[in-house]
Amino acid sequence: MKIAVLPGDGIGPEIVAQAVKVLKALASDGLKVELEQAHIGGAGYDAAGDPLPDATMKLAQDSDAVLLGAVGGWQYDTLPRPMRPEQGLLRIRKGMGVFANLRPALLYPELASASTLKPEVVSGLDIMIVRELTGDIYFGQPRGIQVNDKGEREGINTMRYCESEIRRIAKVGYEIAMKRSRKLCSVDKANVLETTELWREIVTGMNKDYPEVELSHMYVDNAAMQLVRAPKQFDVMITGNIFGDILSDEASMLTGSIGMLPSASLDANNKGLYEPSHGSAPDIAGKDIANPLATILSVAMMLRYTFNNEEAAGRIENAVKNVLAQGYRTADIYTEGTRKASCSEMGAAVVAAL
Amino acid sequence: MKIAVLPGDGIGPEIVAQAVKVLKALASDGLKVELEQAHIGGAGYDAAGDPLPDATMKLAQDSDAVLLGAVGGWQYDTLPRPMRPEQGLLRIRKGMGVFANLRPALLYPELASASTLKPEVVSGLDIMIVRELTGDIYFGQPRGIQVNDKGEREGINTMRYCESEIRRIAKVGYEIAMKRSRKLCSVDKANVLETTELWREIVTGMNKDYPEVELSHMYVDNAAMQLVRAPKQFDVMITGNIFGDILSDEASMLTGSIGMLPSASLDANNKGLYEPSHGSAPDIAGKDIANPLATILSVAMMLRYTFNNEEAAGRIENAVKNVLAQGYRTADIYTEGTRKASCSEMGAAVVAAL
Ligand SMILES: CC(C)[C@H](C(=O)O)[C@@H](O)C(=O)O
Ligand SMILES: CC(C)[C@H](C(=O)O)[C@@H](O)C(=O)O
Repeated sequence: MKIAVLPGDGIGPEIVAQAVKVLKALASDGLKVELEQAHIGGAGYDAAGDPLPDATMKLAQDSDAVLLGAVGGWQYDTLPRPMRPEQGLLRIRKGMGVFANLRPALLYPELASASTLKPEVVSGLDIMIVRELTGDIYFGQPRGIQVNDKGEREGINTMRYCESEIRRIAKVGYEIAMKRSRKLCSVDKANVLETTELWREIVTGMNKDYPEVELSHMYVDNAAMQLVRAPKQFDVMITGNIFGDILSDEASMLTGSIGMLPSASLDANNKGLYEPSHGSAPDIAGKDIANPLATILSVAMMLRYTFNNEEAAGRIENAVKNVLAQGYRTADIYTEGTRKASCSEMGAAVVAAL
Repeated sequence: MKIAVLPGDGIGPEIVAQAVKVLKALASDGLKVELEQAHIGGAGYDAAGDPLPDATMKLAQDSDAVLLGAVGGWQYDTLPRPMRPEQGLLRIRKGMGVFANLRPALLYPELASASTLKPEVVSGLDIMIVRELTGDIYFGQPRGIQVNDKGEREGINTMRYCESEIRRIAKVGYEIAMKRSRKLCSVDKANVLETTELWREIVTGMNKDYPEVELSHMYVDNAAMQLVRAPKQFDVMITGNIFGDILSDEASMLTGSIGMLPSASLDANNKGLYEPSHGSAPDIAGKDIANPLATILSVAMMLRYTFNNEEAAGRIENAVKNVLAQGYRTADIYTEGTRKASCSEMGAAVVAAL
C-alpha cells in the first residue's frame, strides 16, 4: 500500500509526523506500507510556486491513499486566488475525484465536559455526516465577478448537481446507514432551490433499494437548529457540498474537541484523502502543542475505508481511547487533574498503547 | 398608520390575534392604527387559489407595515411548487422589496435554562443578525431542472449579488452596529465563492464611512462553529440570504426559546414586514397553546423601525419582560414552578401589563 503524505502548512507537519509514527509502528508489526512525502498548500507555493504542484498531484494519483495535514497561513492571504493554499485542497479533491466526505462528530466520554452544550444533550453523541465534495456551488460554472447591464460589478456562482452525482453520494449515505443504525437524514433546501428538489427526489427514489433504511428529509435551516436543540436525534446525515461544509463544522463543534475529529474523502473505488477536520492553526504552529489525535484517527479511517483493514483501524482507535483513559491531554483538551502532553508526547503515547 | 394583518396558516391566526389585541390596547391609549386583514400562504391558496393573492399584495403595498403570522401546513406539501405556502412568503418579500431581515437572538434571563447550552456560554446573549432577503441564490437566474448534454437531469440555482445590493444591506448592518456595540462581523465564503469575495470587498470598503465600527470577517463554516463555541463574541452579524437563513436559525436556537424571537424585514424607507422567527407549527394549531410573544415582539419591532415610535416599542417589550417576571409561561417555555398560560391568556397578560 502506497501512501502519499502531504503535511501542508501551520501545525500540519507536526501532527502528520505523529500519524506517521503510528503508521511506522504498525509497519514494524507487519503492515505493508510505503510512504512518500510531497508539498501542498502554502508549502507547495513556497516550494514550487503552486498550492498543488504537478508532482504532488501525480504522487496522489499513483498512491492508494493520501494523508493530509492542513493548509493555510496568514502569509498567503494576500496572494491572488489561484495561488492560495485552499485552492490546492479544492484541486486535489477534484483531481482525485473524492466525492464522498465522511465527517464523524463523536463525543469521547472523557472529553464530555469540553462541549459547550449540556452533558445530557450531547453525551453519547455519534453522528456521521456524509458531505458531497466535488460538486455543488464549489465547482459550478458559470462563476466569477463581471459587470452587469447596469454597469455594476456582480458576483456569480452556480449551484449544480446532476442525477448521477446525487445518486453516487446517496449510495454512500445509504451504505453507511446500513452499517450503522439504518437511519438516514438527507438535508436540503427543497422548498426554495430546485437543485435540492432534484436531490430530494433522487434520494427518496433510492430508498426502495435500501428498504431497511429509515429515510427522513430536513431543510438545512432546520437542521442547523436541530443540531443545537437535540443532536442525538441524528445518526447518518447526507447533504451537498456547501450545506455539508457548514453543518459538519457546526456538528463537530458540538463535541467541544475538534482536535479529535478525523475525516475521510473517498472516490468510487474507496481510494481516499484523509485529513483532520480542523485547520492549520498557524498561531500555535511549530510549538509542539497541537493535538495529533484527529490526524492519527484519520489514519484509522484510511485503514478501514481504503485498505479494508478493520483490525488495524480498531487497534488505532483503541489506542487513542486508551491514552485518553490514561489521562493524556494536549493543551486544547486539557483540564485540571489530567496529564498535559505535547504533540509528540501524545504521538508517542499512542504508539506505546498500540 | 395602516397595518396589513396576514395571519396565514397553522398557529398564525391564534398568535396574530394576540398581537392585534396588543395593538388595539395601544390604540385605545391614543396610538393611531388602522388594521386590515388578508390571506397569505395556504390560507391564500384556499381562499383565492394563490399563496399570495393579488388583493393581499395590493393591501401590503398600500399599507405602512405588514404583520404576518406564519405560512405552511402538511396539506399543502403536495401542491405544485408555485402554489406552495412558502412561495407566498418569498413573493411578498420580493414584492415589498424588504431586503433587510433583522433577526435578534436574545436570551431572556428568566428562560436561560431552556437553552441546550451551558448557562455561562449563553447568559446575556444578544446577537442581531442582519440577513439580506431579496437576492442571492433564492432569486438568482438561471434556475431550474433541465436535461444536460449527457442526457441526465441537472438542477441549477444561481448565487448572485451586485454591488448596489451588497452596499444597501451593508449600510443597514453598519447603522445598526453604530446603535449597538459598534462591532460588525460579516460572514461569507470568500475563500471559495467569488460572489462573496465581492461581498467582502464592498463591506470592507464601506468601513471608511463608519470608522468607529470594528469590522471583522468570518467564513460561514467557522461562523456556524463559533456560534456554538462562544456565541457571545458576536454582536451584529451581516450576511447573505442563504447563509443568513441557516445561521439565524442556528443562533435563535441557542436561546432555547424561539417562541420568543421576532423579526423585521425592511425596505429602503423602513417600510416593513414583521413576523415571528418560528414557523406555523401545524401540530399544535387551533389548540390555543402556541406562544404569541414572538409575534407581539414583532409588533414592538414594527413600532420601532417603521413607525419610529421607540416609546410604544419599549412599552411592549417591558410588558413582555413583566409577564415573564410574573411567571407566565406558554407550554413551549414552561418549567415547574411557573404559571402555565394558554396563547390567549398570555396575550391578555401582556395587555394587562402594558
Ligand atoms: C478551506 C476550505 C476551502 C474547505 C471547504 O470549504 O471545503 C474547508 O472549510 C473544509 O471544510 O475542508
Ligand atoms: C420558508 C422559507 C422559504 C423561509 C426562508 O428560507 O427564507 C424561512 O426558512 C425563513 O427563514 O423565513
